[in-house]
Amino acid sequence: MVVKKSDDFSEWYNEVVELAQLTDKRYPIKGMNVWTPYGWKIMRQIDTYIRQELDATNHDEVCFPLLIPETEFKKEKEHIKGFDSEVYWVTHAGLNKLDIPLCLRPTSETAMYPIFALWVRSHSDLPLKTYQIVNTFRYETKQTRAFIRVREIHFFESHTCHTTEEDAQKQVEEDFVILERLNKHLALPYLLLKRTDWDKFPGAYYTVGVDCPLLEGRSLQLGSIHHYRQNFSKPFEIKFEDVDGELKFVHQTTYGMSERLVGSIVAFHGDDKGLVLPPDVAPLQIVIVPILAKGKVEEVLAEARRLRDELLAAGLRVTLDERDDRPGSKFYHWEIKGVPLRLELGGRDIAEGKVSYAIRLNGSKGTFLRGNAITDSRAMLDKISADMMSNAARRLATSVETVSSLDAPPKKILRFGWCGSEDCGHKIEEKTELKLLGTPYNPEDFHGECIMCGKQTNIVAYAARSM
Amino acid sequence: MVVKKSDDFSEWYNEVVELAQLTDKRYPIKGMNVWTPYGWKIMRQIDTYIRQELDATNHDEVCFPLLIPETEFKKEKEHIKGFDSEVYWVTHAGLNKLDIPLCLRPTSETAMYPIFALWVRSHSDLPLKTYQIVNTFRYETKQTRAFIRVREIHFFESHTCHTTEEDAQKQVEEDFVILERLNKHLALPYLLLKRTDWDKFPGAYYTVGVDCPLLEGRSLQLGSIHHYRQNFSKPFEIKFEDVDGELKFVHQTTYGMSERLVGSIVAFHGDDKGLVLPPDVAPLQIVIVPILAKGKVEEVLAEARRLRDELLAAGLRVTLDERDDRPGSKFYHWEIKGVPLRLELGGRDIAEGKVSYAIRLNGSKGTFLRGNAITDSRAMLDKISADMMSNAARRLATSVETVSSLDAPPKKILRFGWCGSEDCGHKIEEKTELKLLGTPYNPEDFHGECIMCGKQTNIVAYAARSM
Repeated sequence: MVVKKSDDFSEWYNEVVELAQLTDKRYPIKGMNVWTPYGWKIMRQIDTYIRQELDATNHDEVCFPLLIPETEFKKEKEHIKGFDSEVYWVTHAGLNKLDIPLCLRPTSETAMYPIFALWVRSHSDLPLKTYQIVNTFRYETKQTRAFIRVREIHFFESHTCHTTEEDAQKQVEEDFVILERLNKHLALPYLLLKRTDWDKFPGAYYTVGVDCPLLEGRSLQLGSIHHYRQNFSKPFEIKFEDVDGELKFVHQTTYGMSERLVGSIVAFHGDDKGLVLPPDVAPLQIVIVPILAKGKVEEVLAEARRLRDELLAAGLRVTLDERDDRPGSKFYHWEIKGVPLRLELGGRDIAEGKVSYAIRLNGSKGTFLRGNAITDSRAMLDKISADMMSNAARRLATSVETVSSLDAPPKKILRFGWCGSEDCGHKIEEKTELKLLGTPYNPEDFHGECIMCGKQTNIVAYAARSM
Repeated sequence: MVVKKSDDFSEWYNEVVELAQLTDKRYPIKGMNVWTPYGWKIMRQIDTYIRQELDATNHDEVCFPLLIPETEFKKEKEHIKGFDSEVYWVTHAGLNKLDIPLCLRPTSETAMYPIFALWVRSHSDLPLKTYQIVNTFRYETKQTRAFIRVREIHFFESHTCHTTEEDAQKQVEEDFVILERLNKHLALPYLLLKRTDWDKFPGAYYTVGVDCPLLEGRSLQLGSIHHYRQNFSKPFEIKFEDVDGELKFVHQTTYGMSERLVGSIVAFHGDDKGLVLPPDVAPLQIVIVPILAKGKVEEVLAEARRLRDELLAAGLRVTLDERDDRPGSKFYHWEIKGVPLRLELGGRDIAEGKVSYAIRLNGSKGTFLRGNAITDSRAMLDKISADMMSNAARRLATSVETVSSLDAPPKKILRFGWCGSEDCGHKIEEKTELKLLGTPYNPEDFHGECIMCGKQTNIVAYAARSM
């Protein structure tokens, strides 16, 4: 590693992503990167946790087609307006020009809802809770950044239909619980902020952003949760016969998060030595480096293999680095790759019945008894996970600053009074060059003045530089 | 079920697919179907087995972009010729016309190989063994059929690079072993047939088709395994420095199979009552139907739930059908869905300490002791798997007929002498209206005459109606 995180975050991020071999950005289309084996393993592990949580809350996994006919795509007017400049169009197939152009899904509302209209007939078909894990496509014109701003995006999207607005509202609350459970594996800090009306998802009733305070004063949207009310069910005619015999339109919600989760893990947990992976998502949780002195090579290797096999049998993800290289060079290699726990085994360790260890997160070192290898390794991995959660909580607690003036250059995410008007909102954004993230989803007690017009208000708003 | 399999296979197939709710064909683009929860669970279970086998043979999972620039796509001439009429083209993004059109992958050679050229530097980088599980796109102009001929195709593709032709050849042999292991879960009959030179994969040195004798006289290509020699590595410049210091082009292979595996399971194992699923891929291996007599409802339900929980805890995929419906109607429902084992539990069963069962594959019925529920259920599922493998072996053994004249209308896959000339090959296809599938990959002892020109030959060829 050449660049320090605190010196130049962007350069540092690019260096970690490249040296840890998380992705290959040399694919001949900008912003469409290759998932290399190491990065893909992390993503797939996260997908596994997503499936666990969504299955446990009775969501059914489906897979809808990628291509959406222009005629369907245009059915909800706000929606098409929101995506007009971001969509890829298939216009030809084989040697023919298509009658109706097909767009690559930027999100799947307009693919799913014509079919939901066929699936939903009666109140007994509701709630309908589905999700899919697929790639989505957006013609990004801003500077791209691996995992964080790309043009082919790996993501999950859950789509639900309900009999009433209240029921849909309960789904939104459940989504927050799902997010919290999922985050136990990722250890990221986040705020739930209700987007302003002019910034919500195209077609939504309201949008809650999941905002990660990644760096001082900067936030990244990790995902979003939307309540649609009947905004889509009306144009797509998703109706059900209610218990009272009346035909009604369903109320809908969606929830989506993308490969930005991987990017956020890199950006938040990483340090000047490279990646630092939470044990739950690490493709390798433990690396064993044998310390081979002359005359002891075979003995040490044999014992290192036994140790590896024991740990593997206990269900841990372990590798033994038998490459012909110096231990120091191996340490460096696995530190960049963010392996949470390194075990070292040399002639003296074996003689003393011990194993040496080094913890990637904080660099602490020590030894444990060989006989306790499984329990001590597990305990250390659990401790690392807990420490990473504490780091996230600490970041969250210190990431926001309540201000009463916008004059000083912001160092944190700003929190301030806002009268709620679009006019003041835009003025705040113009003056600070920050993005108005919205208002806390869970109401916060606030009495003060709008930071722009001075009017008395109970509304508090957040603003930050976005990434 | 209305249609009999033997009366009208096509109608029967469509009816099973629809009634078992494996897919929804009402999506507004022909040949692009929706994976519904039940069908997708089967596909994902098959994907899990594919990952198991490919991981165990040291293939690394990757994920390459969907879109391929026209410039890369055109690098291998035979390849582009083969796909010219089948490819979807993205020509616009947002409000812009793209400088270089992008095609949706019909297969990923031309996406992967420019990057392989960067990954492979030295003999120590080889073999490079990768795979991905993605969707692929072909503008199919023939009549579409769920899972069997569609335009968005779920599939896996493995791509490998080797130092020598022999090493690549060994990979092809390993692929056959992988296929055999994978098929233990699917129980499909198949032949390995080396395609004729004019029918091989565009750009391949040779192609082996995995041909399933699905119906009498009809075969379906389940997948294919290709040796490319250096046909792609030369245009894509995938070179390595060998031990002798010389720069050489790699030798490559690929192996791919698609959602046709699901279609073949439907088509081969299904019967006039609907789907028959092999236990290994069944989303539900066991359904418990409670037989509720008046006054016994709560008692029976409580015991049925205990039985379900026991079987679930033992790792079996089980559901208890508590819907308010007649048992007969439930039997019918789960028979269509192909659940391998049905357990029935009524007041008398409980009094006698027994459980009644019915096996979907052959309709056999009986009882076992309640105390043996786990072991007996497992044993029955194992027996069903073994019986389905025997059915496949029987079909394979009786699916081919060696003929010495092409005059009689074929009832089986035909096997006959062939001089090997393209001229006779085409004449055979014209005369019989069958597809010449090629010659056995594993040589078969044959001495005879070409069925077309009468020349003495040791070559034996296969032909069938394709599906």
